[in-house]
Amino acid sequence: MERQALIDLLELLYSQKIDVDQAAEQLRNIPFHDLDFAKVDHHRSLRVGHPEVIFCQGKSTWQILEIVRHQISADETVFGTRADKQALDALKSEFREIEISETGRCFWRKSKNWKPKQDVKGQIVIASGGTSDAPVVEEARLSVEILGHPCIAIQDVGVAGIHRLFAHYSQLQKASVAIVVAGMEGALPSVVSGLISSPIIGVPTSIGYGANLNGMVALLAMLNSCASGLTVVNIDNGFGAACAAVRMNSLSV
Amino acid sequence: MERQALIDLLELLYSQKIDVDQAAEQLRNIPFHDLDFAKVDHHRSLRVGHPEVIFCQGKSTWQILEIVRHQISADETVFGTRADKQALDALKSEFREIEISETGRCFWRKSKNWKPKQDVKGQIVIASGGTSDAPVVEEARLSVEILGHPCIAIQDVGVAGIHRLFAHYSQLQKASVAIVVAGMEGALPSVVSGLISSPIIGVPTSIGYGANLNGMVALLAMLNSCASGLTVVNIDNGFGAACAAVRMNSLSV
Amino acid sequence: MERQALIDLLELLYSQKIDVDQAAEQLRNIPFHDLDFAKVDHHRSLRVGHPEVIFCQGKSTWQILEIVRHQISADETVFGTRADKQALDALKSEFREIEISETGRCFWRKSKNWKPKQDVKGQIVIASGGTSDAPVVEEARLSVEILGHPCIAIQDVGVAGIHRLFAHYSQLQKASVAIVVAGMEGALPSVVSGLISSPIIGVPTSIGYGANLNGMVALLAMLNSCASGLTVVNIDNGFGAACAAVRMNSLSV
Amino acid sequence: MERQALIDLLELLYSQKIDVDQAAEQLRNIPFHDLDFAKVDHHRSLRVGHPEVIFCQGKSTWQILEIVRHQISADETVFGTRADKQALDALKSEFREIEISETGRCFWRKSKNWKPKQDVKGQIVIASGGTSDAPVVEEARLSVEILGHPCIAIQDVGVAGIHRLFAHYSQLQKASVAIVVAGMEGALPSVVSGLISSPIIGVPTSIGYGANLNGMVALLAMLNSCASGLTVVNIDNGFGAACAAVRMNSLSV
Amino acid sequence: MERQALIDLLELLYSQKIDVDQAAEQLRNIPFHDLDFAKVDHHRSLRVGHPEVIFCQGKSTWQILEIVRHQISADETVFGTRADKQALDALKSEFREIEISETGRCFWRKSKNWKPKQDVKGQIVIASGGTSDAPVVEEARLSVEILGHPCIAIQDVGVAGIHRLFAHYSQLQKASVAIVVAGMEGALPSVVSGLISSPIIGVPTSIGYGANLNGMVALLAMLNSCASGLTVVNIDNGFGAACAAVRMNSLSV
Amino acid sequence: MERQALIDLLELLYSQKIDVDQAAEQLRNIPFHDLDFAKVDHHRSLRVGHPEVIFCQGKSTWQILEIVRHQISADETVFGTRADKQALDALKSEFREIEISETGRCFWRKSKNWKPKQDVKGQIVIASGGTSDAPVVEEARLSVEILGHPCIAIQDVGVAGIHRLFAHYSQLQKASVAIVVAGMEGALPSVVSGLISSPIIGVPTSIGYGANLNGMVALLAMLNSCASGLTVVNIDNGFGAACAAVRMNSLSV
Amino acid sequence: MERQALIDLLELLYSQKIDVDQAAEQLRNIPFHDLDFAKVDHHRSLRVGHPEVIFCQGKSTWQILEIVRHQISADETVFGTRADKQALDALKSEFREIEISETGRCFWRKSKNWKPKQDVKGQIVIASGGTSDAPVVEEARLSVEILGHPCIAIQDVGVAGIHRLFAHYSQLQKASVAIVVAGMEGALPSVVSGLISSPIIGVPTSIGYGANLNGMVALLAMLNSCASGLTVVNIDNGFGAACAAVRMNSLSV
Amino acid sequence: MERQALIDLLELLYSQKIDVDQAAEQLRNIPFHDLDFAKVDHHRSLRVGHPEVIFCQGKSTWQILEIVRHQISADETVFGTRADKQALDALKSEFREIEISETGRCFWRKSKNWKPKQDVKGQIVIASGGTSDAPVVEEARLSVEILGHPCIAIQDVGVAGIHRLFAHYSQLQKASVAIVVAGMEGALPSVVSGLISSPIIGVPTSIGYGANLNGMVALLAMLNSCASGLTVVNIDNGFGAACAAVRMNSLSV
Repeated sequence: MERQALIDLLELLYSQKIDVDQAAEQLRNIPFHDLDFAKVDHHRSLRVGHPEVIFCQGKSTWQILEIVRHQISADETVFGTRADKQALDALKSEFREIEISETGRCFWRKSKNWKPKQDVKGQIVIASGGTSDAPVVEEARLSVEILGHPCIAIQDVGVAGIHRLFAHYSQLQKASVAIVVAGMEGALPSVVSGLISSPIIGVPTSIGYGANLNGMVALLAMLNSCASGLTVVNIDNGFGAACAAVRMNSLSV
Repeated sequence: MERQALIDLLELLYSQKIDVDQAAEQLRNIPFHDLDFAKVDHHRSLRVGHPEVIFCQGKSTWQILEIVRHQISADETVFGTRADKQALDALKSEFREIEISETGRCFWRKSKNWKPKQDVKGQIVIASGGTSDAPVVEEARLSVEILGHPCIAIQDVGVAGIHRLFAHYSQLQKASVAIVVAGMEGALPSVVSGLISSPIIGVPTSIGYGANLNGMVALLAMLNSCASGLTVVNIDNGFGAACAAVRMNSLSV
Repeated sequence: MERQALIDLLELLYSQKIDVDQAAEQLRNIPFHDLDFAKVDHHRSLRVGHPEVIFCQGKSTWQILEIVRHQISADETVFGTRADKQALDALKSEFREIEISETGRCFWRKSKNWKPKQDVKGQIVIASGGTSDAPVVEEARLSVEILGHPCIAIQDVGVAGIHRLFAHYSQLQKASVAIVVAGMEGALPSVVSGLISSPIIGVPTSIGYGANLNGMVALLAMLNSCASGLTVVNIDNGFGAACAAVRMNSLSV
Repeated sequence: MERQALIDLLELLYSQKIDVDQAAEQLRNIPFHDLDFAKVDHHRSLRVGHPEVIFCQGKSTWQILEIVRHQISADETVFGTRADKQALDALKSEFREIEISETGRCFWRKSKNWKPKQDVKGQIVIASGGTSDAPVVEEARLSVEILGHPCIAIQDVGVAGIHRLFAHYSQLQKASVAIVVAGMEGALPSVVSGLISSPIIGVPTSIGYGANLNGMVALLAMLNSCASGLTVVNIDNGFGAACAAVRMNSLSV
Repeated sequence: MERQALIDLLELLYSQKIDVDQAAEQLRNIPFHDLDFAKVDHHRSLRVGHPEVIFCQGKSTWQILEIVRHQISADETVFGTRADKQALDALKSEFREIEISETGRCFWRKSKNWKPKQDVKGQIVIASGGTSDAPVVEEARLSVEILGHPCIAIQDVGVAGIHRLFAHYSQLQKASVAIVVAGMEGALPSVVSGLISSPIIGVPTSIGYGANLNGMVALLAMLNSCASGLTVVNIDNGFGAACAAVRMNSLSV
Repeated sequence: MERQALIDLLELLYSQKIDVDQAAEQLRNIPFHDLDFAKVDHHRSLRVGHPEVIFCQGKSTWQILEIVRHQISADETVFGTRADKQALDALKSEFREIEISETGRCFWRKSKNWKPKQDVKGQIVIASGGTSDAPVVEEARLSVEILGHPCIAIQDVGVAGIHRLFAHYSQLQKASVAIVVAGMEGALPSVVSGLISSPIIGVPTSIGYGANLNGMVALLAMLNSCASGLTVVNIDNGFGAACAAVRMNSLSV
Repeated sequence: MERQALIDLLELLYSQKIDVDQAAEQLRNIPFHDLDFAKVDHHRSLRVGHPEVIFCQGKSTWQILEIVRHQISADETVFGTRADKQALDALKSEFREIEISETGRCFWRKSKNWKPKQDVKGQIVIASGGTSDAPVVEEARLSVEILGHPCIAIQDVGVAGIHRLFAHYSQLQKASVAIVVAGMEGALPSVVSGLISSPIIGVPTSIGYGANLNGMVALLAMLNSCASGLTVVNIDNGFGAACAAVRMNSLSV
Repeated sequence: MERQALIDLLELLYSQKIDVDQAAEQLRNIPFHDLDFAKVDHHRSLRVGHPEVIFCQGKSTWQILEIVRHQISADETVFGTRADKQALDALKSEFREIEISETGRCFWRKSKNWKPKQDVKGQIVIASGGTSDAPVVEEARLSVEILGHPCIAIQDVGVAGIHRLFAHYSQLQKASVAIVVAGMEGALPSVVSGLISSPIIGVPTSIGYGANLNGMVALLAMLNSCASGLTVVNIDNGFGAACAAVRMNSLSV
């Protein structure tokens, strides 16, 4: 459509219905996003398969319901993260078709047009240190799935019982991309980075107490890893890790 | 060889020269790295095309020279990072064949067997905010090159003059993976993440003064980016970003 | 009145009803605020057009009501910030004439004498990174308005979709003063500073999670901006930014 | 010139020498900075009256000399900040026409075309807490002067001897914009903000020791000021304060 | 009594009822607090005029009531700090004779033996920056009073309206010891230290928001004061300031 | 069992029912924890005398009940830490046999097989600075007891009344290992380290307010102790201190 | 003199040589420091017995020499702190009459008019934790002496060997004011506060390494002391502690 | 001797040469360290087998030489830590009998009376993450040896190549006490704690750069370990770890 606006303008000029000065003036007044530039945004929409992820933290239940009503009426894929129990209950009672993960604090409904990416060859593996990291693992896992990529999760393989990790060694080695989730001392991504050759995304969690500084220690430990190939996202940011993993995995087309 | 040790043991059992108990006992005494496990390490060597990167910070010039002498006599590829001027001068005067980047604080010599990766399809793009970030850009660029991947660098396109970035828009869009280097407020990776759909690695630098906290502000700003698809490495860690980028780019085979 | 006290004293001396020593003694006993010095305070009252802004955070609903009752009985302009829902509800039910912004956590009533500044030429523009910054934007916008200066707000133009900002480029360029509000990585003020030549006031917000350190990262990022012309206020301090913007805009008389 | 390129293209279309598709294609290939957008940058140059400020910290003496040689040969106005003694000595011995401030760690040469802003009505006042803040005061004062605005400095009027400040009360009241420089507890800007009605820019300095955290305490104290109308820049950032003050003072035209 | 135990032992030796070895052995078994050393503790009780201050934070209402019951039954002076509303209400309903300050979060009952110190010459003055500092002022004021020293409080004389402080100049000058309470930027103690020659105790409060770091900024600002004669206590520690002031004022006997 | 799997495989080879290549392949597919390695974990279970400690913080009452039901039905020793009042009440009402410490936020039931370690010679002594440290002391004391080691606790012997500590000097000297618990300034472990020659474990607590940074000050003070022989665990980590003390005391067999 | 200016003005009015309006106008133009107010400053000079303490840190040797030359030519008492070896050597070689403490980094010369305070009854005692704290002890001791108060120092009585402190128990008890200097864990002031009833000033030092955060840990530990009567100054601030101690000790007149 | 002083006093009383009051008075005047109390100190000397460890950091070469001269003339065992190259060179040239470790920054000479502890059964094992940790490992190893306990070191077994650690599994399992040294992310102690059942002492090192905060990240990671049995000492504190390990190992007598 926007491209059409540009074409229309140029055709007016070509047919000499406006002159060069008028055309130049109008060109400058077309907002940038009306030009090719805005494709970035559209491209993103197409790529992730849903128009908008709803980050619910700080939004009222009423606001969330409004957005979801709008998206469902337009038959868009719905995906929301960081929803509290009150919001999830309200969604469940109003929309039968919405699926919910209390652990992952997420909800979703795939539109009719949603389908998994078919040309992606690799599988994303999510590994976590302890059972308390489950909310972050679940947020990452569901995000990857909604974005259409294959994914498995291996939980509770923290470094204090390192043999548990080795029991899953072959699964890890097959990962196209690994998301490694850990709280407390945040050591698991370092160990995994030394075991496999794929890109690793470390996700520190706020799990712990006392001098864990709400996850800052796990975050900083991952950034200071002596292992190469490891990059890091914000504390508890399962969704962000999923987005980055999907960008990486899309290279394996 | 190590695999051979295992095979030998099994053959002794097969030919009934030892019994089951003896075999079980010996199996337990073979150190783990003598089993398949240690392949991880060998695999890493093969993958990066050089036996060891020399991290020179904290090493004496004498120690660096010793390592390089050993590597050259074995005709290995040599690559060193974070070398100060004294070390670079000493290397230059002793080894004619070693190349040097004062800006990047690196030195290298490719062995006869070194060759670029031939099955990699994507190009890694490095973008930086200001001219002062050059040492980190150079460390990243040289690391990528030694690791055998194609790479270009776009410097001085910081957010305070955002039009400079747009002049390189098409180059950025062609990136398989982007490494984005920035000091001070560390905003460039956020902007780039919104412009392209490839994975982005943010590298904060210690460039700045006063309340920049030696790069911590740039680091934390990148981790709190409102853009998705961005992951982050340690302050000034050009080499680490290169390793991660190469792992990602290897997915584009 | 206070000046009168001084005049009275001097006239007693002039008419020789007291002697020099008595005058000197009494002069020292007149508190400083009884002299010209206290005009500073009065001048401030006159300048901002209301006797007192009520900072509600930490005050009980009862205390707030008491202050408002007093101000309304004196037909003063009322303006309160950082009021929680309970206080706003109580105000609404007691005073019909009070207006309220739930988003901005503010309430106000203009006295009969209130009128917009008429000699001010410039317009203050408020830009924000995301919809979650709305409370701070609203606090700033209402503060500017009560202080009598013209103001518009442009919301949700954060750096992760930089084309959105450019769509408002001409509005920004017309700003006499720009207040730029951003949470998370706090990069928007840097970008705006490079686009326009007016003074920019950065307002970091506490929006974000994990390693955002409750807004400290956005604050520090703005202070380390590579762009010139940018100054910064405390986290979430929309009112403070408005006061500073009004001081600046008053220069455009 | 760039606008010309656009006009040329449109005229080709108007004269039907190219068709609409070709025009649309070429329009997309014109880099953004070739459009009106890049004027921002030129505008900045025109506004500040010199092509580039040289931030010397982190540059070698040789690099600084090279830049200055280039600027002088083009008869541009030269202005450098944060130069160490070695650089200043080298500049002095090579260029007779360059002026130098050891205290302010600055050097400058005004080109033939340089002249003070003539339509600016207000005067910028710089106040500082102690004599140790002199380098920052001097950097700010020289920056304001090179940018063509009138400026006076009042030094050593810190809060521990508050009467010293009052002795300069009338000078402060006449300020169009006040830059207030203070280290240690950083209290001076708060006091000044209560005394005058102009915009105040607080500049924390790294002066102090022990728990001053290299100026972070002064910085944070200013940001938490109970006085309104105060905005803040980075630690020791005299140049940044000058740029912001000049933007504000330009409103007084 | 304890001294008696020692005397008894020595007399047994003197009368040769035990020998030297037995005496040496028994001397080593007398716990230290049975010797003169324990007088320190008794001396403290005598000095402060009440057996124990009840720090209520973290204690249950039930625990507080138990302690108060015990003290009242022994006719001791009761003094409690940091009590929440629930505890104060419970105390009020059980004990008619207990007095309460909701603002200061304190309660007290003077025993029959309580009387003000009669040989103390100086008066302690408490000054505060804003009305929100009232709880800390009140805790300090009541503590000083219970400890038997004369005290006055001057509130809301913060540095953003410095003339308010000067109106109380003569009161401040008469202070034997000054306790200066301030939140936000914590500048008031610095200003007061320059005005009077008595010892000043700075009490930072947690009043403020955003980058005030819950009072750490006020605390650090006071510690970095450019004024001499100022010492500092913990955030919100009105009781601690009172204890220190009383120790100082006791020198004025 | 797992060992059996290995034996079975080897016997197949010995009896030549599989060949060497098949054996080698299968050996690599046996997960590591099926080998001797996993004994580490079993060994831990045996050592501590209970299958699993339940860390209740972050677990729902329902989840805790489920785990306890499972353990009791298997007649395992039950031990839970960091349980809130709701969980403790629920446990009490469902299981008559469970014992509870509200102060220590713990619950436990010893299985029929539980018995104290009989070959341990030393006694663990826990000392604490103040009565508010009681929850941490209690958690440590109960943990040591459940782990089967002898233990006594000496409370409220903080450094501000140092004679109280000396009254317990002989008890301290007899300690095989000392756990020293302190909040606020965290000085007690330093003093104890100078008095006795056994290993000391410092446990900082979050007791305090204002600039205590939730226990970080006590933690850092202990780590910077000028006394030797002192090691430190996380804030409020009574259970961790108990585990470490038990490992040390087990050397005294 | 300044008072005279006021008197002169009032006499002109009294003799009706000027009228009331003229007097009011002139009164407003007399700078504040010309009124009684400025006595504060003079009073300070008189009180401390020397016109200016030279804080040498950050001053060049040349600047220090200039100030000393000026003071000696005016026969003023000279006192300088934080002087490095170069400055001390230069002072020694130029001025025979100047005394020097290399340990305390101080120099001084008493003028002919200098004499100890004669009406002060109390003695200031300085205690320190270790021999490495000697520079701070010495700075404090010399400052107290130059300010004319009696003083003794007890060094190396840190808490890790607490019996060393008790050996000086009677000296401590006689202290009018105690300055307690300690680095590392900063525990000594807490212990001393429990032993004596005089005011205690804690001086944290930067002695230590690793997690001592350059003295911040000792500083924060002292502020969180569980002992009452303790106030604190900045890290290594021996001079500030001396000034505060002298203010306190002056109450004992 | 000191005991003798006590005995002498008691005998004077027994023989009635002094009376009870005189004895009581003299007993109170004997400094505490003259009583049994001071044995603590002597006991420490005996226990560690050398009179004093010289902590050289912050001491001049001249001061170190003086101490060593004194110790050698008294034929005491000499042991110094944190000595720089200049000091080591000076020691080497003056004392032939002194041994030196440049890596460990230590020097030592065993006196004739020195001998290894003979009743200690356990061996202390030191493991480290990387070769850069060697100085801390060496300081710990030499300290343990001088203190007379058996010790071995396993270096460069960091978590990024976890198989290297497993190669030393049996050595680790035989450790009586393990000292685990690691910089960067500090993960090694967590992994080791899960592998063995002995007490583990974590020693964080300052090895790393950027966001490692000079070792604070490694320190905090260790304190937040999800593994039990781990206690921690200050950054780079090899000597402190050795002292604690020796205290623990002494339990294995």
